[in-house]
Amino acid sequence: MPDKMKLDELGEEWIIRHLARKFSTDNPRVTTAIGDDTSVSTQMGSMSLLATTDTLTEGVHFRQGLTTPKLLGAKALSISLSDIAAMGGWPLFLLVSLSLPPKTEKRFLDQLYSGIRSRAKQYGVGLAGGNLSRSSEISITTTVVGEAPKSDVVYRKGARAGDIIYVTGEPGEAALGLTELERTGLAEARRGPLRASVMRHLDPEPRLDAGRALAKEKLATAMIDVSDGVLLDLRRLCAQSGVGAAIEVGKLPLSAGLERYRDGGGRWASLALSGGEDYELLFTVRPKNAGRIEKLSKKLALRMTAIGRVTKGAKVCALGPDNRPLTIKKEGFLHF
Amino acid sequence: MPDKMKLDELGEEWIIRHLARKFSTDNPRVTTAIGDDTSVSTQMGSMSLLATTDTLTEGVHFRQGLTTPKLLGAKALSISLSDIAAMGGWPLFLLVSLSLPPKTEKRFLDQLYSGIRSRAKQYGVGLAGGNLSRSSEISITTTVVGEAPKSDVVYRKGARAGDIIYVTGEPGEAALGLTELERTGLAEARRGPLRASVMRHLDPEPRLDAGRALAKEKLATAMIDVSDGVLLDLRRLCAQSGVGAAIEVGKLPLSAGLERYRDGGGRWASLALSGGEDYELLFTVRPKNAGRIEKLSKKLALRMTAIGRVTKGAKVCALGPDNRPLTIKKEGFLHF
Repeated sequence: MPDKMKLDELGEEWIIRHLARKFSTDNPRVTTAIGDDTSVSTQMGSMSLLATTDTLTEGVHFRQGLTTPKLLGAKALSISLSDIAAMGGWPLFLLVSLSLPPKTEKRFLDQLYSGIRSRAKQYGVGLAGGNLSRSSEISITTTVVGEAPKSDVVYRKGARAGDIIYVTGEPGEAALGLTELERTGLAEARRGPLRASVMRHLDPEPRLDAGRALAKEKLATAMIDVSDGVLLDLRRLCAQSGVGAAIEVGKLPLSAGLERYRDGGGRWASLALSGGEDYELLFTVRPKNAGRIEKLSKKLALRMTAIGRVTKGAKVCALGPDNRPLTIKKEGFLHF
Repeated sequence: MPDKMKLDELGEEWIIRHLARKFSTDNPRVTTAIGDDTSVSTQMGSMSLLATTDTLTEGVHFRQGLTTPKLLGAKALSISLSDIAAMGGWPLFLLVSLSLPPKTEKRFLDQLYSGIRSRAKQYGVGLAGGNLSRSSEISITTTVVGEAPKSDVVYRKGARAGDIIYVTGEPGEAALGLTELERTGLAEARRGPLRASVMRHLDPEPRLDAGRALAKEKLATAMIDVSDGVLLDLRRLCAQSGVGAAIEVGKLPLSAGLERYRDGGGRWASLALSGGEDYELLFTVRPKNAGRIEKLSKKLALRMTAIGRVTKGAKVCALGPDNRPLTIKKEGFLHF
């Protein structure tokens, strides 16, 4: 690619593959770098250390009038915890690097930290310090270090043809919530009929218990968290596993909010397949273990829905009611 | 403080103390959070895990015409490595969170990573992945995780009255280099008479070998890296140790560049005391170990200069040639 090409011409998927090649590490203590939700490194005895970093930037990931500083702080941590969940691990500690304009009010900082703190407390995450600097736009980078027994870690690469594809919760909820939030504003959206969807966008729940259980019980053969949409994240999982996949659109779990759109054209399917920021877990399971997933789902009181099958080849498609592949226009959220 | 006060009214030192109180962690595996160069989370047998995060933001920490993407990448990693050095540890792996405008050229990204990569290789740091997102200004957050034997870790808190204060290299070099860079521009500054100072600003060297040796040989009783100026960082070390300090300005080590200003008013002293971004190590040593420091300095071919003494009380001052405390106008770089 020519050096003068711009990032938005290259596209995010290309850039990430490109960096992954450059990033290939010869350090024997870093076992997985780019290509999974977190890096896995530094084997300490029988434990693997997991590390992940994410940035939320004003105007890109959030707008000040459409969330609160407290919700923003909690979300900044949750999205990193979700990466740890997708590896089957638990979090140890958190570092926060905050970039703030000089005219930011003390109240904003306090509420942001209050959100981070309460979410950290909820999951037993140690607040281990960070960095504070000046900028023209608000930007919050969270780095979470976690761990898992070496033999439990679930990668993106373990899926095999024939495996059943599952997803937790109801993907598409967060994207629906964001649409509503943009349409009505924060105050109305939080008390309106779609408030559950709105809160899924504003305050996603990292699926740490589910991820841990799926890893510990050796049920998930591959796993990823849905940050950029079911189809796009499934493609990433399949690429690492060297397999294809077929999703049956009719099987997608719909929330009460999404259900309202079922008869109004294909919008529900488009949200469920391509809506980002749900932070649900997408994972593959050997068919013989389907019964155990049902039990686990009941035990955790968390919906886990079989939505398709892993296939041979490299093709990832969504099948409509007539079993024909659907054409999806916008597949998920990409930065560039 | 009133909630509506702005960050630039509160000041960085106040904000950090304020966050440190909020940040107090009840997680037993995080032993030190805010208040040292890195967090220390003890857990893995006899080893302590060290973690640190830093952000470089365009327009605040660098300007595009005044550095190259490659130097910028190397510096982003070096400043985090410097924090690991100040704890007496060695680095294990690195996470990078990059925020870039969509119109950034591929060449910029490639050269930035090339700088990160070569610095990582130099110090055996594993590149463990990261995050890429869109923004309106360039921002690079590096998180480095390192380790040290638990008994070796050097904190800011171990200084005692009577200890000798040492500093590596020639602090003030980087600030002098920045002044020159801003005066003449990049091309001329890199080949001009102050090129050594300019490179100290553009490409600081993390003092990992020195930090490690001082820790392993139990020579440093307290240590910090000089990121915001000798006086300001010494104040931070003293605050954690519950001591005061007196620096003798006449003892400050001067580079060839700084030496030129010695007779031209107090500018040399102001740069040496308050110039930031040198990433030299500032540490305290029991008087009986002064001879061992001299030997270590020779062995590492790194200047280590005794610049003053730790005192009782809480006062940190710089003494002029007549042994009277100097008045320092601008003490170091603060973000707010």
